[in-house]
Amino acid sequence: MSWVYIKDFKDHVGEEVTVKGWLYNKRKSGKIRFLIVRDGTGYVQCVMVKVELPEEEWSKFSDLTQESSLEVTGKIRAEKRAPGGYELDVNHIRIVQIAQDYPITPKEHGVDFLLERRHLWLRSSRQHLIMQVRNEIIKATRDYFYDNGFILIDTPLITGSIGETASTLFETEYYDFGTAFLAQTGQLYLEAACMAHGRVYGFGPSFRAEKSKTRRHLSEYWHVEGEVAFCDNDENIDIQEDYVCYLVLRVLDRCRSQLEGLERDISKLENITKPFHRFSYDDTIKMLQEMGSDIKWGEDLGGDDETILTEKYNKPIFVINYPAQAKAFYMKRHPDNPELVLCSDLLAPEGYGEIIGASQREDDYDLLIKRIREENLPEEAYGWYLDLRKYGSVPHSGFGLGIERTVTWICGLHHIREAIPFPRMLYRLYP
Amino acid sequence: MSWVYIKDFKDHVGEEVTVKGWLYNKRKSGKIRFLIVRDGTGYVQCVMVKVELPEEEWSKFSDLTQESSLEVTGKIRAEKRAPGGYELDVNHIRIVQIAQDYPITPKEHGVDFLLERRHLWLRSSRQHLIMQVRNEIIKATRDYFYDNGFILIDTPLITGSIGETASTLFETEYYDFGTAFLAQTGQLYLEAACMAHGRVYGFGPSFRAEKSKTRRHLSEYWHVEGEVAFCDNDENIDIQEDYVCYLVLRVLDRCRSQLEGLERDISKLENITKPFHRFSYDDTIKMLQEMGSDIKWGEDLGGDDETILTEKYNKPIFVINYPAQAKAFYMKRHPDNPELVLCSDLLAPEGYGEIIGASQREDDYDLLIKRIREENLPEEAYGWYLDLRKYGSVPHSGFGLGIERTVTWICGLHHIREAIPFPRMLYRLYP
Repeated sequence: MSWVYIKDFKDHVGEEVTVKGWLYNKRKSGKIRFLIVRDGTGYVQCVMVKVELPEEEWSKFSDLTQESSLEVTGKIRAEKRAPGGYELDVNHIRIVQIAQDYPITPKEHGVDFLLERRHLWLRSSRQHLIMQVRNEIIKATRDYFYDNGFILIDTPLITGSIGETASTLFETEYYDFGTAFLAQTGQLYLEAACMAHGRVYGFGPSFRAEKSKTRRHLSEYWHVEGEVAFCDNDENIDIQEDYVCYLVLRVLDRCRSQLEGLERDISKLENITKPFHRFSYDDTIKMLQEMGSDIKWGEDLGGDDETILTEKYNKPIFVINYPAQAKAFYMKRHPDNPELVLCSDLLAPEGYGEIIGASQREDDYDLLIKRIREENLPEEAYGWYLDLRKYGSVPHSGFGLGIERTVTWICGLHHIREAIPFPRMLYRLYP
Repeated sequence: MSWVYIKDFKDHVGEEVTVKGWLYNKRKSGKIRFLIVRDGTGYVQCVMVKVELPEEEWSKFSDLTQESSLEVTGKIRAEKRAPGGYELDVNHIRIVQIAQDYPITPKEHGVDFLLERRHLWLRSSRQHLIMQVRNEIIKATRDYFYDNGFILIDTPLITGSIGETASTLFETEYYDFGTAFLAQTGQLYLEAACMAHGRVYGFGPSFRAEKSKTRRHLSEYWHVEGEVAFCDNDENIDIQEDYVCYLVLRVLDRCRSQLEGLERDISKLENITKPFHRFSYDDTIKMLQEMGSDIKWGEDLGGDDETILTEKYNKPIFVINYPAQAKAFYMKRHPDNPELVLCSDLLAPEGYGEIIGASQREDDYDLLIKRIREENLPEEAYGWYLDLRKYGSVPHSGFGLGIERTVTWICGLHHIREAIPFPRMLYRLYP
């Protein structure tokens, strides 16, 4: 009997097939028994009719418990009223293992209870849908960069150079070299690589040892970073806008049923079209102050600022040209106002906030080394980075998008911890 | 003037365009000057004719040095004799930056010299080609798993559980939890996830603090891992064979010019078709002994064994069912011979050796906990992993492929260090 995944039932109507999976739920109705089986690709209601089954088959219904593994053989029947459109008329059941006391039951559990059992929680329907959308967002990202001529450059995770804030680095001993760091960004390496390939991207985990417990932070997250040679801040913003629109469109196109299952307001995503809002930092500060924020000019936006600002808008917002003091050393000074840098943050609407940080990079050797010294960074570690400003320096820009923040927004989740299979946070290292 | 990448010249013949890039080389011939410019997507010969250029343009030729950045405006002309098929008749040159004393010259450099300047070495033509092939192999991997119904599950890099050999783990302090480890594999997590999604894959960096200095080892490498529920060792081997054939075919299809540039013997890759060789471990040991190896039954294959064995064959070799003592605790015992486990290693031909490790996983709770105790592994760290054998355990199998080893083989490289943008090795943490 041929094994068929539930997602492929449409191609096998009327055939006798075997489904291999786990019992999701079961119920009785008179002389009929229903097994709801999941196989990872979908759910199917398997129908057991007493008069048509020998007693040894019929009695398996009562043995089967939630999450027991089994193989069900039967005939596929189209059934409009069934959730997936098909039912399976059972001929034979092979029980693989009876699960005893599966801990996650249909009742409500606390989130700590579920996170402690993340290895099982992933089987729950909502988590299953989120991971399908995550899979689509990441594949769409790979397709976008590949199709637009970006070469993948995987940047090192263990590094002697530091990208951003030294205070939030995880450390590891590296052979005889002493302390090395887990990368917070691959940007510096991508800057080198864009001088070789023109357009490059990196996509890997980044690490931040931030002792913050918010719904927007993970200690380990997946980070897509693009870098383009001969590209200024405005062109950089255009690329980001194009990429984010592509992501949303792909999910709308290929994961509509998943979004419905997650009860996402799809109309809000259908709104995500060009052009996005583009506000200067100066105007943004004024708007926030008018909304009641106590933010002062010169400060980076806080989480609450991002929330109140983006709740007002139905499209993403680029906040452009921050004060240099609020941003990293490698950003290029604004030619007309040396207090500002050529940069942008992209904030997702509906209160979600920052998903991208971006900037044009300082391409002048003297200005860059001055900034490195001002920040008291270890100059020798940046020798190779400074080389890029000596040997054919060019204007170049790039951006980094946090995948889990994007999944959180697109899926309409409350907290980022559900947007990654096994979250790593201040109080979470297990499973 | 519109900016056009060199790879797109074919669509703009006869047009005046601007190329933005770096000077790769230059030469003179009578009253004509040639600039070979690279822009990351290709190389083009830009032709300067003295009688057609004002002196201020003509004189820029002598100013320009290797790796100077520039923008060249001119008309595209088809030219069969030119390497890419086109030349650019120069009207105007804008020098962005003159590079002084670029350290990598056309003469031969030692590999340490080049590795120390990896941020610049990436610009060299050979390294440029390798990264293009790597980009293709990784995109082909993403496409293969996506198109075959695998859901991406990114597994954690910082972990309390240990996958394989404790002696080769990098450590990091994780908040109040004490010592955590950088993952050597995501397999255990993928086993959990395949119970949720049926077919899953992970693709991220893995870390091995191995104090070995061979042409096959990196301390940080990229690792593709597939895991399938209701899949035995034989079906697992079929998937690997299919996937590796797909990779080679994609590179042959889309990167033929890169392979030619690398002087790869393409006929050797055209040989990579199903079926691959499938040898039992027992037979492999006999063959190796006959070839002069001093390997004894029970030992894992050494690097030299892999070399001599695979030099004899023009297709990859699956070595199947190793002794349990040579392999990891989670592999399932052979039903007919408890000394062996249901596993396979895939060795690439031409002396390249192991690119995949694979096995069916132990799905019996009692046998698994017995193995964990025999290996003196911390039982509490594996509580969640054991759960998978309590709640609907099913037969399942998976495999892990090392991307850089695969790039090394497909590109025909001598050493793995050229197969990753910024290698991390025993003596290499910079740049």
